[in-house]
Amino acid sequence: MSVASKAPDYIHAITPYPPGKPIGELAREMGIPEASIVKLASNENPLGMSVRAKEAAVAALVDIERYPDGNGFELKAALCARFGVQPDQIVLGNGSNDVLELAAHAYLAPGSSAVFSRHAFAVYPLATNAMGARGIEVPARAYGHDLAAMAAAVATDTRIVFIANPNNPTGTFVDGSELEAFLARVPSDVLVVLDEAYTEYLSEQQRYDSLSWLPRFPNLLVSRTMSKAYGMAGLRVGYGIGHPDVVDLMNRVRQPFNVNSVALAAATAALADEEFLARSADVNRRGMAQITEALAELALEWIPSAGNFVTFRVGNAAAVNLALLKQGVIVRPIGGYGMPEWLRVSIGLPEENARFITALRQALA
Amino acid sequence: MSVASKAPDYIHAITPYPPGKPIGELAREMGIPEASIVKLASNENPLGMSVRAKEAAVAALVDIERYPDGNGFELKAALCARFGVQPDQIVLGNGSNDVLELAAHAYLAPGSSAVFSRHAFAVYPLATNAMGARGIEVPARAYGHDLAAMAAAVATDTRIVFIANPNNPTGTFVDGSELEAFLARVPSDVLVVLDEAYTEYLSEQQRYDSLSWLPRFPNLLVSRTMSKAYGMAGLRVGYGIGHPDVVDLMNRVRQPFNVNSVALAAATAALADEEFLARSADVNRRGMAQITEALAELALEWIPSAGNFVTFRVGNAAAVNLALLKQGVIVRPIGGYGMPEWLRVSIGLPEENARFITALRQALA
Repeated sequence: MSVASKAPDYIHAITPYPPGKPIGELAREMGIPEASIVKLASNENPLGMSVRAKEAAVAALVDIERYPDGNGFELKAALCARFGVQPDQIVLGNGSNDVLELAAHAYLAPGSSAVFSRHAFAVYPLATNAMGARGIEVPARAYGHDLAAMAAAVATDTRIVFIANPNNPTGTFVDGSELEAFLARVPSDVLVVLDEAYTEYLSEQQRYDSLSWLPRFPNLLVSRTMSKAYGMAGLRVGYGIGHPDVVDLMNRVRQPFNVNSVALAAATAALADEEFLARSADVNRRGMAQITEALAELALEWIPSAGNFVTFRVGNAAAVNLALLKQGVIVRPIGGYGMPEWLRVSIGLPEENARFITALRQALA
Repeated sequence: MSVASKAPDYIHAITPYPPGKPIGELAREMGIPEASIVKLASNENPLGMSVRAKEAAVAALVDIERYPDGNGFELKAALCARFGVQPDQIVLGNGSNDVLELAAHAYLAPGSSAVFSRHAFAVYPLATNAMGARGIEVPARAYGHDLAAMAAAVATDTRIVFIANPNNPTGTFVDGSELEAFLARVPSDVLVVLDEAYTEYLSEQQRYDSLSWLPRFPNLLVSRTMSKAYGMAGLRVGYGIGHPDVVDLMNRVRQPFNVNSVALAAATAALADEEFLARSADVNRRGMAQITEALAELALEWIPSAGNFVTFRVGNAAAVNLALLKQGVIVRPIGGYGMPEWLRVSIGLPEENARFITALRQALA
């Protein structure tokens, strides 16, 4: 018997997450100079990271031979000050991907299940399957979460419901009032992981305060990331806020030094730079208008998005994607999300968006 | 029913890893200025990180808004060049802690077991318990691995044997020839995770080439870290080298962006700086002599160590530790390792070692 064969069947069944194509990889594959490539594939912040965060990152390199503070004292203090929560309500993650996996690890096992929506973030089924638990995929409504159907899908062995709001990769958005009603309906011993990775991009009208629901719903875990609006994808920082008992369980399966020192320092500084956050949202709003106007001109269907990306239908997505790649433009095919006719483009700087629009026009011609 | 109660019993039973006390924490607790504190608690490199690695780290901050290369192309290429292996034999980890957990996650589940030694690294039982598997702890021989007893302890449901060489926290070392004989004895469908976190500190006479055994033993996974001799604990980089089938399974449960961009860049540069590595080993050799001579003078028992730390017996370790802390010297109590009378001190710079020796003399007086 080979050693590989001895891993559980559900491990053998996993297909790893397909990341957006890195610029360096396309450059190597196509022989295109890196500088001429536009990557709008991973919902990254086109403004980069806040200068204040960058300064803090450089400063953290001074004693980088030391282990990170595994308790994240400074970052938790900054989060507490900002959101009016207590340190024991916070679990820090190596990106919010880590937060999602910690929840799965603490709650799921062979014999239990998790509920998520079709066309929702790929990590939910991945994290569920990796724990040997059963995934219950609920059909989408207009490419978004059908909360009534999701509540009805909760089984006796369900331990987690994953909700992304806004959703990735479709950009759909559910009102705060609907989420609140959903929480009231779900059994109180089922953890609801509310993934708000794109929440900083919501408009004034869309905003809701999920943290204010925590006293009423101890089974709510709000997950957020510094990878999107804070422009820190390369540093990997996310956080979960929930009931101390839930956070305690997640901390037991957390790697003691899961967030590195540079990431901790940069995140603490980034939280203080509200001007940067406002500018990021503003650039996104304009870029979203620029791209959706072009999609309308090209008579392409798209899904109205509350995030920093928009998903549009081109029919033969593989062919259009290849034509874009040849022009040095990287977007994201989402066939793996059950949407083989669609592509997702991240909102970039005005000139990046223009490059994408020109390349798309060419690809469709 | 509360949501916390619904996590599996084995999750509730976990006690999290107790990290070394951070300097900032001691400063806050005791009101001691940070600059006057000597931390010799976490086997960190007193030389810091290589300047070349630091330059690469700063350069990586330029486009830190981008996701890391989830495949670690550049770092894997550097590891391949250095160790004569192929990229599909390498799994990258967020520190070697991550590598150990990936092995546990890929192979362990409720109903299986893992074998490890008493007084061995705390992450082995932690990672085993976190997967709901059974830990089989084998009594130590002279505070080190009893390989014959460990081979005999392998049960029909055993999927992993963890071995640390040198071992942490005891510093004990097993000859390469003994490890080879052990591998020949263990069933070929049991994964042997050989944790060589401290291998760069071995003397010329102690060195062995575990990677050369891989063709004969596809069930061997060698785990290494950049946290110790490379001085990169704050950045979190480790790697596992093994059979492509084993590595493939570990990559399925690996978070797609587990190693951050700064860490990837710094590690790639650090591998090229052999002079720094040699200097680190040299400083360690002299510091080890400095500290063990003092322990001999104080008539304290210690365990001969092949690592960058040494473990010594003081009797009432809690009292001695507190007396050291009050003098601003942080070492590591290892009661959690079943050694309540012992302390572990990391080898520092000559002046740090001297501070420790003076404080210890005072604490014992």
